[in-house]
Amino acid sequence: MYRFSSVYQSPKGSPIRALYKHLSEPGMISFAGGYPDPQLFDVQGLGAASERAFANSKACLEYGPTEGTSGLKEALVQLMQQRGVHTRPENLIVTTGSQQAFDLVLRVLVEKGDSVFVEQPTYSTNIQAVQAHQAQLTAVPVTAEGMDVQALAHMLESASAQGKTPKLLYTIPNFSNPSGATLSLERRMRLLQLAVQYQVVLVEDDPYGGLRFAGEAVPSLMALASQVPGAQNWVVHMSSLSKIVAPGLRVGWAVAPEEILKRCSVAKQSADVGSSPWIQGIAAEYLASGRLDTHLAHICAAYGAKCRALAQGLRQELGDAIRFHEPSGGMFVWARLTGDITAAELLTHAIARGVMFVPGAGFQADGTDDFTLRLSFASPTLEEVAQGCKRLGEAMAAARAAKNKQAQPA
Amino acid sequence: MYRFSSVYQSPKGSPIRALYKHLSEPGMISFAGGYPDPQLFDVQGLGAASERAFANSKACLEYGPTEGTSGLKEALVQLMQQRGVHTRPENLIVTTGSQQAFDLVLRVLVEKGDSVFVEQPTYSTNIQAVQAHQAQLTAVPVTAEGMDVQALAHMLESASAQGKTPKLLYTIPNFSNPSGATLSLERRMRLLQLAVQYQVVLVEDDPYGGLRFAGEAVPSLMALASQVPGAQNWVVHMSSLSKIVAPGLRVGWAVAPEEILKRCSVAKQSADVGSSPWIQGIAAEYLASGRLDTHLAHICAAYGAKCRALAQGLRQELGDAIRFHEPSGGMFVWARLTGDITAAELLTHAIARGVMFVPGAGFQADGTDDFTLRLSFASPTLEEVAQGCKRLGEAMAAARAAKNKQAQPA
Repeated sequence: MYRFSSVYQSPKGSPIRALYKHLSEPGMISFAGGYPDPQLFDVQGLGAASERAFANSKACLEYGPTEGTSGLKEALVQLMQQRGVHTRPENLIVTTGSQQAFDLVLRVLVEKGDSVFVEQPTYSTNIQAVQAHQAQLTAVPVTAEGMDVQALAHMLESASAQGKTPKLLYTIPNFSNPSGATLSLERRMRLLQLAVQYQVVLVEDDPYGGLRFAGEAVPSLMALASQVPGAQNWVVHMSSLSKIVAPGLRVGWAVAPEEILKRCSVAKQSADVGSSPWIQGIAAEYLASGRLDTHLAHICAAYGAKCRALAQGLRQELGDAIRFHEPSGGMFVWARLTGDITAAELLTHAIARGVMFVPGAGFQADGTDDFTLRLSFASPTLEEVAQGCKRLGEAMAAARAAKNKQAQPA
Repeated sequence: MYRFSSVYQSPKGSPIRALYKHLSEPGMISFAGGYPDPQLFDVQGLGAASERAFANSKACLEYGPTEGTSGLKEALVQLMQQRGVHTRPENLIVTTGSQQAFDLVLRVLVEKGDSVFVEQPTYSTNIQAVQAHQAQLTAVPVTAEGMDVQALAHMLESASAQGKTPKLLYTIPNFSNPSGATLSLERRMRLLQLAVQYQVVLVEDDPYGGLRFAGEAVPSLMALASQVPGAQNWVVHMSSLSKIVAPGLRVGWAVAPEEILKRCSVAKQSADVGSSPWIQGIAAEYLASGRLDTHLAHICAAYGAKCRALAQGLRQELGDAIRFHEPSGGMFVWARLTGDITAAELLTHAIARGVMFVPGAGFQADGTDDFTLRLSFASPTLEEVAQGCKRLGEAMAAARAAKNKQAQPA
């Protein structure tokens, strides 16, 4: 009856949402969501920030600038400075999570039929976001060291020869969702050179960079751009307080070259006029309180312990049946089943035994992969991690038994 | 250098933003913005709501459902019930202001080249929003009784004959921004019939309906839809707490038929994942506190007094040089200059004398009108309203003198 836009003729929600209904099953242990551990929230610090913000109730309650309140923008400029990025409030826009930052960048750059490169695997909601802009998606392979920039160089050369250079390349270089991989310094430099050579906007999504619990930090693409002539024109950096402070704030931001940022701001006017100045006030007060560094040290230690517990549990309970790289930060382990049981088959038996994860198929822009899965160690307790791995081991045994039974002649 | 999407080749911000710089000039009296009076905010009630919301800090700080938290959705369903609309949480989506609700509706319905009808004059940011979706805009004239539905009937007939029936028609039926006009009951019924006949989605934007200070309320299109066979399928209702509680919350919502709502929810996933559960918690607590009715009575009385003061001041200081209808609610007086001074000319002299308004040209989807202007009585005090009118009178005298001087031979 309705004449919907062609993008929404048959709407598909996130593949993860299909699993939501199981989350509330009694005793369910979830490795599925990409959610921070609520036990780790700095409730006291955020409560105090909320009170301080409301003490200036006028600023909370009135309209604010579309690009974000000056207080929060300045606090975020300082946070970026700590992360090795020297920027100015004029180059920063506050958004509703980094999700909105990506949506704004897509709006100003991408039109129907344009080419967009993403990593494979990549964050499922952003596959949807690119598809909603009717772009052609191309998947760049990822290895344990992050995006395969050698493969990318060939892909760009070939795309360029066909006059189909991508408008942008979307990457999650630190502790990627879902791969957990971190792009090596060498690859980052090469990626920046390629961006300049092919005039492709690199969209660097960095929600997890603050969550490193092992090894040495690698500077962001935006921090490194000053070392590659011309590269500063080609990097848009997005980040968020969702994973390091609390998702309920829905505070994200983008840092971008002025011309791009100006257009994002015009796009945000039509999109929502501006994010809540009240929430921005709370976020600014929290950042100004100086509690973030201590808080980060605390949550990184906790996530590190959980990650090691998950890795150990998987090895112990699944042995050779699973392969994965242990990440140095973030929230995710990306794993591959080595036998003939698919992730979807394992999931059915896992849910029946009270444990969940996300099959990897939903994170593929291009083709599919039935044997990968994403496990998040962030929300469950250490005991739940161990127990969850045990259940996964049992689920694998059950899946194998079911497969053998199928294979036997009647 | 950048290959921007064609919509953003030469980005144009809102025409009102061009005036922002004058807002901070000392002593400036502004009839320009569409901002509620901060002196009227229920600071005490909102502070208490904020404390109550944070008492359940877990719900504030975690991710919430994309469509909105169940607490706020239920409170909004009740508010809609008070307004004569019987709906369910499943038909309601919480958005970042009603601006985002419109953006989501545009995303799911409108593609490049589609036809969209709007009122003339209409809210400038939504002219931009429609243009950002690359739709063809058609302007339907508005009289003192709201949209000219007779003219609309002819326009729809002709569009239909050409196979270009609009995908949607955007209307602000109560105390419209900028026209101040309210659509009569008779016209509402006719509009609903036309929507059914031509299968056009009516997007009813109702941020001001709660701000009636004179006359009898007219039921919303969505409330009336049950009286017109088939019409319930064709109305999307949007509203907001910005004008009745506080803009800083950025809480808006849409009520829509299930098929449309489901797609809006998928679009919101890509757009921003979801609005802040913290702010939604505060809004839900405020609505649950039962303070809104008393608060509305208080602000309606205040806005009514300011509106009468503005009308009286304009008559007194500008006399026959200006024509307008006194609205029965909302925040805006839409006026027409009767002489040869344009609104832009008057504005130049007005700003020099410490008073501002918005020329009507920015509110025209189609063509232009140099002699109209929008004046908001919401923010200034009663004394400022009187003083502002005086300055407008002086500005008019100065504009005439300048014009006469120009016209004289050297």
